[in-house]
Amino acid sequence: MELSQIEHIGIACPSLEEAIPFYENVLGLKCYNIEVVEDQKVKTAFFKIGEVKLELLEPTSEESTIAKFIEKNGGRGGMHHIAFKTKDVAACLADAESKGVRLIDAAPRKGAEGLNIAFLHPKSTCGVLTEICENPKEK
Amino acid sequence: MELSQIEHIGIACPSLEEAIPFYENVLGLKCYNIEVVEDQKVKTAFFKIGEVKLELLEPTSEESTIAKFIEKNGGRGGMHHIAFKTKDVAACLADAESKGVRLIDAAPRKGAEGLNIAFLHPKSTCGVLTEICENPKEK
Repeated sequence: MELSQIEHIGIACPSLEEAIPFYENVLGLKCYNIEVVEDQKVKTAFFKIGEVKLELLEPTSEESTIAKFIEKNGGRGGMHHIAFKTKDVAACLADAESKGVRLIDAAPRKGAEGLNIAFLHPKSTCGVLTEICENPKEK
Repeated sequence: MELSQIEHIGIACPSLEEAIPFYENVLGLKCYNIEVVEDQKVKTAFFKIGEVKLELLEPTSEESTIAKFIEKNGGRGGMHHIAFKTKDVAACLADAESKGVRLIDAAPRKGAEGLNIAFLHPKSTCGVLTEICENPKEK
């Protein structure tokens, strides 16, 4: 598949209110967007450093996969996924599937910031939850 | 502190021999360097995508912190740390400490690829093991 860069790193946080000050006051980054993604039951906060975004994810429901991740992680936040940028998510999924990779999403769906996204299953990616995304405005 | 970009993402792997083919054959990246870091008891494999490196970490000893991470993670690999690039690690450490951040390394030490590195403690970084690094050749 053709990937051009890391689009973002997803970081699970029990509380954005606690996490944002660390990223702003200690690391010196600036939160430029906060967005609720109903579909994924999360509230996200975005930062940018170089060409990469950091996407902090706070669960808005106990049924959110982020809530389950935090629970399994002893109530703490942590690195949740890496998202790679491509020009064609559907082509990447077809390519991955042809190589025996297990998919979480068989087809692209809408993610935060208007991106088309899909996840590969961590069982096929050496334990790293891997997202592939494209910006439809750049197509 | 002044951070310019993500230098690398550290990914723990039980076996580089199993992980490298995923990154090369599925994601289409190229492993450009394999290096043993005796100090940290790891064998590392490096990939680059855009401005960011992926650093795969295989433990070379059961006493390696990476071996312990994998054991706690049910024997599976996973995302281990984020490394941010700066021009002055010592200044970043002094700044972080002045803001009450717990440090793993009180002073910079040598890491892979000749970088000067230091880690902040995940208890102070919302669960994400955070590395700060500088390239002495760029000083």
